[in-house]
Amino acid sequence: MSETGAVIVGVDVGGTNIEVGSVDERHTVLQRAKAATPEGGPADVLQVITDLVRSLDDSPAAVGVGIPGVVHDGRALTVPNLVGWTEGVDLTGPLSEQLGVPVTLGNDANVGLLGEWTAGAARGGRDILGLWMGTGIGGGLILDGRPYVGSRGAAGEIGHVVVLAGGALCTCGRRGCAEAYAGRRSMRGVATTMVEAGWESSLFTIRDDEGKSKLTSKVWAHALDDGDALAQKLFDTAIETLGIAVASAINLLDLDRVVVGGGLAEKLGQNLADRLHTAAEPWMLQPNPDLKFVVSELEDDAGVVGAAVLARAALISP
Amino acid sequence: MSETGAVIVGVDVGGTNIEVGSVDERHTVLQRAKAATPEGGPADVLQVITDLVRSLDDSPAAVGVGIPGVVHDGRALTVPNLVGWTEGVDLTGPLSEQLGVPVTLGNDANVGLLGEWTAGAARGGRDILGLWMGTGIGGGLILDGRPYVGSRGAAGEIGHVVVLAGGALCTCGRRGCAEAYAGRRSMRGVATTMVEAGWESSLFTIRDDEGKSKLTSKVWAHALDDGDALAQKLFDTAIETLGIAVASAINLLDLDRVVVGGGLAEKLGQNLADRLHTAAEPWMLQPNPDLKFVVSELEDDAGVVGAAVLARAALISP
Repeated sequence: MSETGAVIVGVDVGGTNIEVGSVDERHTVLQRAKAATPEGGPADVLQVITDLVRSLDDSPAAVGVGIPGVVHDGRALTVPNLVGWTEGVDLTGPLSEQLGVPVTLGNDANVGLLGEWTAGAARGGRDILGLWMGTGIGGGLILDGRPYVGSRGAAGEIGHVVVLAGGALCTCGRRGCAEAYAGRRSMRGVATTMVEAGWESSLFTIRDDEGKSKLTSKVWAHALDDGDALAQKLFDTAIETLGIAVASAINLLDLDRVVVGGGLAEKLGQNLADRLHTAAEPWMLQPNPDLKFVVSELEDDAGVVGAAVLARAALISP
Repeated sequence: MSETGAVIVGVDVGGTNIEVGSVDERHTVLQRAKAATPEGGPADVLQVITDLVRSLDDSPAAVGVGIPGVVHDGRALTVPNLVGWTEGVDLTGPLSEQLGVPVTLGNDANVGLLGEWTAGAARGGRDILGLWMGTGIGGGLILDGRPYVGSRGAAGEIGHVVVLAGGALCTCGRRGCAEAYAGRRSMRGVATTMVEAGWESSLFTIRDDEGKSKLTSKVWAHALDDGDALAQKLFDTAIETLGIAVASAINLLDLDRVVVGGGLAEKLGQNLADRLHTAAEPWMLQPNPDLKFVVSELEDDAGVVGAAVLARAALISP
């Protein structure tokens, strides 16, 4: 078997779980494994990844890893959502030594878009924004037909495009970022305040019924489905705000594709992408009949498939 | 003489003037000519360009043209600031026939940044935003070390990045774009209203003394220099607003350089770039010690030099 036809393992390191999958040359996930993300820092994460990769049937020719942080020259520079990660972690060196194969590192949002671009909803696009709706709002870019990560690997922060200067306080400490209205963490905060102030909502009842500790995508989707007025109001604001941020990105970058992913995209489907398109349209400078808003096709697998694509590319062109 | 060592003529078509210059292989402007932009439509513009190019001593090996509109596949798709231009004008065909040399067309803001990148303040940058402060706010991008124009050639509209959803009405019809606060046309509108409402300002007196019909960059620079309170207030708002739009672009694109040009940049110098940097900093997600804000070096020649660079590149790699 040639190297490019080999099985590659993709690793998606999230704030909650680490997911790994063996992926063949047609970008099909052959086998999956996952474990909770340890909170002890890089060495523990390294160990969990090693164990998960070794638990798979196939011995990979290479391993690709997506992490929720800034990656530059193969090093994790900042990883705000993982406990115990200081700056400048070398994950690829130790991991490659442990596993005996080349390891390539990328940012999770960029890697997810790479997966969708290679084998999902972003196929055929040239200038693409990937928008991941989760606890925060993540983003990745393909520009001029190749992945774009910026001068330090920190590009894609669509959640921190300012839509309302002086507006709602964002968890980044600034005011008026899209994430301050559309990130699930911020939405939960406002929902809590409103319910404490006497507004009725089924959000927290659904959360308890589902046995969740947080307002997950599933909880939001359920509440929206039930016609919960508060959930609807917060969701409308989230879409409206994201629409403006995405339109600003379109005015700046003349995109031909926007791919929406994350938990809510899985639950709501193409309807979410359509709503975002409708919200962005009034803020776009030039009408563009070729611009498509689509929902993620790979769903939960986007990170694993994209990480494998990244590692496969590095095998061919290191 | 090899083709790449030949003299190329660059043409900068503006809403007010058309400027041409013969440019050598070291990007030095050898000779200049200019004329008022005719208001009769493409045929008249074509004639003026032809006459200007023929008035120069050197016979060019090629001609590059920058126009204030969207350029795609060598055609001018939309040119909002020129009178009588309908969609889909073929300027390069007729002009090339008239002049007997290859003609290459580009958007004026992109071409200006190309000039600065090749021979001016953007040299050495890889991920660059060019910001041109004029009647409106223009923009161009170099991303990953090459010019970026987007899927239809319409990228770079930093003036229509929304900074305050629902804010001031922009000439594009939307609310809260950076240009609604920082474009000279909008600034003049507010200045007029304020003076009519009884606020004191030397802006209009300076305009009359300078024999101008509009509040030009020179008039604004003079009023700011005089410590005019209204001019200062409007300029502060313009910088603050542009700072937010530029920070959004930085969060999205992880830029390493911002080049500020246009009339006001010529008058105020590096201080304008420094002020913009200071205004953007609080809105930037990641501190970036390598990020530079610089003022245009080529000033009025940026468009001519950039258009010549574009045409020279097309000679080598059509």
